[in-house]
Amino acid sequence: MEEVLENVRLSDTDDSVIIIDQTRLPNELSFVELKTAADMYRAIYELQVRGAPAIGICAGFCLYVLAKGIAGLDRSAFVAKLQEFSDYLNSARPTAVNLSWALRRMMGVVHGNSDADVPQLLELLKKECIAIQDEDIKMCRAISEHGLTLLNDGDGILTHCNAGPLATSRYGTALGPLFLGKERGMNFKVYADETRPLLQGARLTAFELSRAGIDVTLICDNMASIVMKNGWVQACFVGCDRVAANGDVANKIGTSGLAILAHYYGIPFYVLGPSSTIDLSCKTGEDIEIELRSPDEIKTMFYSRPMAPKEVKCYNPAFDVTDHSLITGIITEYGICRPPYDVNLIRMLKG
Amino acid sequence: MEEVLENVRLSDTDDSVIIIDQTRLPNELSFVELKTAADMYRAIYELQVRGAPAIGICAGFCLYVLAKGIAGLDRSAFVAKLQEFSDYLNSARPTAVNLSWALRRMMGVVHGNSDADVPQLLELLKKECIAIQDEDIKMCRAISEHGLTLLNDGDGILTHCNAGPLATSRYGTALGPLFLGKERGMNFKVYADETRPLLQGARLTAFELSRAGIDVTLICDNMASIVMKNGWVQACFVGCDRVAANGDVANKIGTSGLAILAHYYGIPFYVLGPSSTIDLSCKTGEDIEIELRSPDEIKTMFYSRPMAPKEVKCYNPAFDVTDHSLITGIITEYGICRPPYDVNLIRMLKG
Repeated sequence: MEEVLENVRLSDTDDSVIIIDQTRLPNELSFVELKTAADMYRAIYELQVRGAPAIGICAGFCLYVLAKGIAGLDRSAFVAKLQEFSDYLNSARPTAVNLSWALRRMMGVVHGNSDADVPQLLELLKKECIAIQDEDIKMCRAISEHGLTLLNDGDGILTHCNAGPLATSRYGTALGPLFLGKERGMNFKVYADETRPLLQGARLTAFELSRAGIDVTLICDNMASIVMKNGWVQACFVGCDRVAANGDVANKIGTSGLAILAHYYGIPFYVLGPSSTIDLSCKTGEDIEIELRSPDEIKTMFYSRPMAPKEVKCYNPAFDVTDHSLITGIITEYGICRPPYDVNLIRMLKG
Repeated sequence: MEEVLENVRLSDTDDSVIIIDQTRLPNELSFVELKTAADMYRAIYELQVRGAPAIGICAGFCLYVLAKGIAGLDRSAFVAKLQEFSDYLNSARPTAVNLSWALRRMMGVVHGNSDADVPQLLELLKKECIAIQDEDIKMCRAISEHGLTLLNDGDGILTHCNAGPLATSRYGTALGPLFLGKERGMNFKVYADETRPLLQGARLTAFELSRAGIDVTLICDNMASIVMKNGWVQACFVGCDRVAANGDVANKIGTSGLAILAHYYGIPFYVLGPSSTIDLSCKTGEDIEIELRSPDEIKTMFYSRPMAPKEVKCYNPAFDVTDHSLITGIITEYGICRPPYDVNLIRMLKG
């Protein structure tokens, strides 16, 4: 593999967060510096940073940088203002649980240390956001190890959207086993759905896998059925944005359709993600709010000219929910969880 | 409805075929004049004219125009050259049966009239290509009437690619019942898959339906699952490029996936097309050759900049085969054919 790309990091002076601008890939590998809360909100909303774990890591760093900027306030004003920043960032994307999880964790440091003054809080916040990233690196590694046990050398794997290093810290979740297997000399044939409307599969997954020398073939989302029918796919590996207590999985729009196809063709369908993605407060997928995004993403984004009538209505959900009955296994850093999920997810989390 | 668009017609002097350039829709309604065999081949290959019936109609007109251009030859040279033109046009797209069907029908006029001299042949060829179009208009109307019996006022209908007037002569096949129902005061809610890579759904179906005042919502292909899950779809209506004797249907890539989703959600899945699309010489879908097209259609077409790594492999099948077990009915001008198709298709055709 080539050198590791650090997709989210603190600047050397802790005054900003530096991210790879994922909207410019694969044509340009460029970095953006996020200084203000508005920069940060925009980066999350516009998917310059995306992937549930990466958003969580980024949100942690962002809240620390914002905290540094208001270090002159007294403790109570500091806490109030920080909470305001946290709520603001949290509103950028409603579906990914990691965003609110990371922000809550950072605010928990503040609320859990009522004796600490502002300089002490800053130190604790810095530790916490770095811990979030370090833990993610370890988690991705563990997920990759567990996921790799499900694959054989030479397997064909279909993936959707992007759940690789760019979406996390290192290795990634759904793509982690492929990178890890590659390091160990295994070869896979990966089919990457382009993932309309924002083409994360075409722009990011194809980019990351090619860069690592992994055999990847790009397809349009509607070609998954024929690729499966051709017998080219031994397993589907996808990431997740939120997992309900019964195993229903919210992930990039199109995931549920893919799971139905895999089920029809008898192909195992695996969901890979950190345990922080499991939200036991959601009983089922019905409790998960699905983000609706702008019609322009379908009608014009990435295009030199509009490719649909200007006034036509669009429905543009960013995610869908895959029914737990369609999922062969949910892989977290703790291992491989199999049905019945309503029992086994809790068992795994309480380990 | 607004005035009828004539998507394929002979020029007034019979020296060329004039088509709507469908690759420029919806941004521009422009016409292209096809004079040479190379123009015609390119128009078919590059989908300036597309839709199985429209390709058939266009091919008939084209062969007549080419015949006129070689009217100075003696009969045997004329026939040999015309056969050459026919083979050349036929090679532009391998999957759509209507292309070879129309060309064979035109050549049949030549071979079936061994007494006719070249001027007489020209007259017969002109009659034949006009007959192909007239019959298509009648067929579409009949298909629309039969298809409409399957719908109720207010129904949600999901469609894929474009099987409307632009793909045929008038009304269309899969969209025909919607136009006819609209004329009769019925209202439908149509969900149009954008249909990657060439976006016929976004560019053409959304255009045609909006223009006719029919309520249409554009979605990305991977959103069909959530739209069905939401309960918004009472039936799927799609066209077809070739139907095998057992009812397997070759149609635009993505159709088979849609059929699997409809099956999973318990939604009826109807295929609409002229009987000329049924190819009893194909026993099953396995006998249907699937056209593979250029990776650039996935990686850059319609884009201002590439949206995938330049060197990444792509798999770009233009069609897929939908298993007959997933199809609720096949609607032709003769009526609604239901399973078992291996018996009922023959019965309908011999009816």
